[in-house]
This record gives sequence, structure tokens and C-alpha cells, in this order.
Amino acid sequence: MRLRVPLDKAYRLLNHGPTVLITTAAEGHRNVMAAAWIMPLDFSPPKVALVIDKLTYSRTLLEASGELVINIPPRSMVDQTLAVGSISGRDLDKFNELGLKTMAAEKVTPPLLSNCIAWLECRLIPQPQLQQDHDLFLAEVVAASANNLVFREGRWHFGENAQRTLHHVAGGHFLQIGDEVEAKEP
Amino acid sequence: MRLRVPLDKAYRLLNHGPTVLITTAAEGHRNVMAAAWIMPLDFSPPKVALVIDKLTYSRTLLEASGELVINIPPRSMVDQTLAVGSISGRDLDKFNELGLKTMAAEKVTPPLLSNCIAWLECRLIPQPQLQQDHDLFLAEVVAASANNLVFREGRWHFGENAQRTLHHVAGGHFLQIGDEVEAKEP
Repeated sequence: MRLRVPLDKAYRLLNHGPTVLITTAAEGHRNVMAAAWIMPLDFSPPKVALVIDKLTYSRTLLEASGELVINIPPRSMVDQTLAVGSISGRDLDKFNELGLKTMAAEKVTPPLLSNCIAWLECRLIPQPQLQQDHDLFLAEVVAASANNLVFREGRWHFGENAQRTLHHVAGGHFLQIGDEVEAKEP
Repeated sequence: MRLRVPLDKAYRLLNHGPTVLITTAAEGHRNVMAAAWIMPLDFSPPKVALVIDKLTYSRTLLEASGELVINIPPRSMVDQTLAVGSISGRDLDKFNELGLKTMAAEKVTPPLLSNCIAWLECRLIPQPQLQQDHDLFLAEVVAASANNLVFREGRWHFGENAQRTLHHVAGGHFLQIGDEVEAKEP
């Protein structure tokens, strides 16, 4: 079941470095891309930083609307996660092409990907120079939610492999997240 | 054995989102801190972006010298990774306090942590406004190396748990990286 994640805990959805799927929408068009270059930027209000290449259609939509959704895909979506990077949303609707089901977001226009395990709805913090020089975008998280089978009470609870987060290395090569490790209090 | 990683493959050391240890040095002082908020920013020349809080002594040293080393700790260093965040380097030498052995870097002054599994030597790309407003730092990677037991030929080859990367969630709670997943070519 999808449950809201308190905004001050939203950074924990990204803190362990998963690869994500970014959805965008503007003027009746929508798109989805994969991104591994993303990190939390602040706790409260929660912010994120991410890299989006100039050549992507997602960037056109993001700069037009100022909104994005960060969707966290589980291992079961590994083929779709690779595939969204191999075709351009300028030419066709990737959601239909790849069978990606969507749900409405709470606060922004881009859709949530139904088969993902966590979602961060974001509004751009415009940084024109940074975007131009380094393809670097800052955004504020305005709503967050997660599948309570894998994230609840501020922590990930990974069980079966199919629901574990993906961590991209290069090409079609990913790692899945593994077991919990508790550090000894110093 | 520590082997050089070609600069155009250096992003692959960070692409899967590990938590890192940052070493800094200036004017005869040195320090180490943990950072989970870090990501690649460009392929070639390789660049990174990371968040460093205003209150840290590491930031004082980084802003004085413009140099840092990103050390990637394996699971065997989980207690030290938590501990470096619980004491301040203003008051004592954390390396001595925590038994962290070091080696000389190739191109910068901050030391490499000997028991880590990969190292990125970096020079700051000054962004005064960004550093002030968002605690966000950009840096260029000028040398990279890795333990060839776990990273070789541009890929991670994780075996025993003790050598797997750590991925911080919150407090003393970490996840270790898991198994490889190959996506089907679309």
C-alpha cells in the first residue's frame, strides 16, 4: 500500500544512492528518463540535486513546467529502467511503448509510476547558471510516499530481491541493494 | 593491490551511490568526515558534487586548500564510518583516535585511507554562492584508484561481505551493496 512519508524523512528514500526514474510533463506531453546522478541536498524542507543532460526531452519538459517526480524502481523494473534511456520521448510516448502504468501525483502534474516503490514529488529551484554550466538541477520535495511493504517508519525493509532498489554501474549492468548493517555506537 | 582507474571510468566508483569518507588537509592539519550526499557530475573530465555542512571542520580545511579525497569504505569499516561523524576534528586528530591508517595521494595533499577500497583525488571548482546558499561543492577528479580485488576493468566485482560498499540510511543504520543484476538489452 502506498503511504505518505513525512517530509523530514523523505531524504531517507535517496540516502542509500538508488538509481531513479524521473517523470516530467508539460503542455500535454509527458516523459520518463533514468537518473543515477541524484542525491539529497537538505533535510527540511527536503531538497535534492540531480544531473539532467541538455540533449534530453525530459529537460525540455522540466524547464517548461518546473516540476518532476522522482520514482524509485525495484529490481523487477530493471529492463524498463535500461530501456527508458534507449529511446527518446520526443518521438513517442515511452509510457505506452514500455507498458509503464501511472497514477496521479498529489501536488504536481508529472505522473507517478505505479510499479515503483517510492515517489518524491518535486518543484524546481531555478538555478539558470548551474543548469547551463553543469546540467545540475536543484529541487524541493513537496510530497513523498512509499510502498509500506518496503519502506515504513523511516526505514527500508527489503525482503525479496524483486523489491530491492537498483544501483546502476554502467550500460546494462546494475547492482541491487543488499543486507542491513548496524554500526556499533562509538 | 591499489591500481589506477582511468579518469574516464572514475564516475563508476560513485555511480551506485556508496557512502564515502572525505579527507581534507590544510596548514598542517587534517581531517576526515563521512558523506552520503555525493554524486558524479560529469564523465570526462570527471567531476563530482557533494554536500558539506557549514559547521564541519572539514569544510574549513576544504575551503582553505581547495583539495579533498573521496575514500570509499568497505563494510569492514562501518564502525569507523559512523564514528568519524561523532567527534570533531577541531579538538583531536580523528585518524589517530580511530586508528585510521593513511597513504600519500598522488596529486593532492589530503591522505588516502589505507583500508578503503577506492579513492578519488579532487580539486574544488569554486562556487562561492552555491557553497554559501546550499552547502553544495563541485570538484574535479584529478586521480582515481581502486583495490583491484573489488574494482577492475571498469566494474565492481564484489565477493565477501567485508569488502562490499556501505550505503547509509540514518543513524547507525546502513545497507551493504548486494548482487549484480543484468538488464535485458531493449
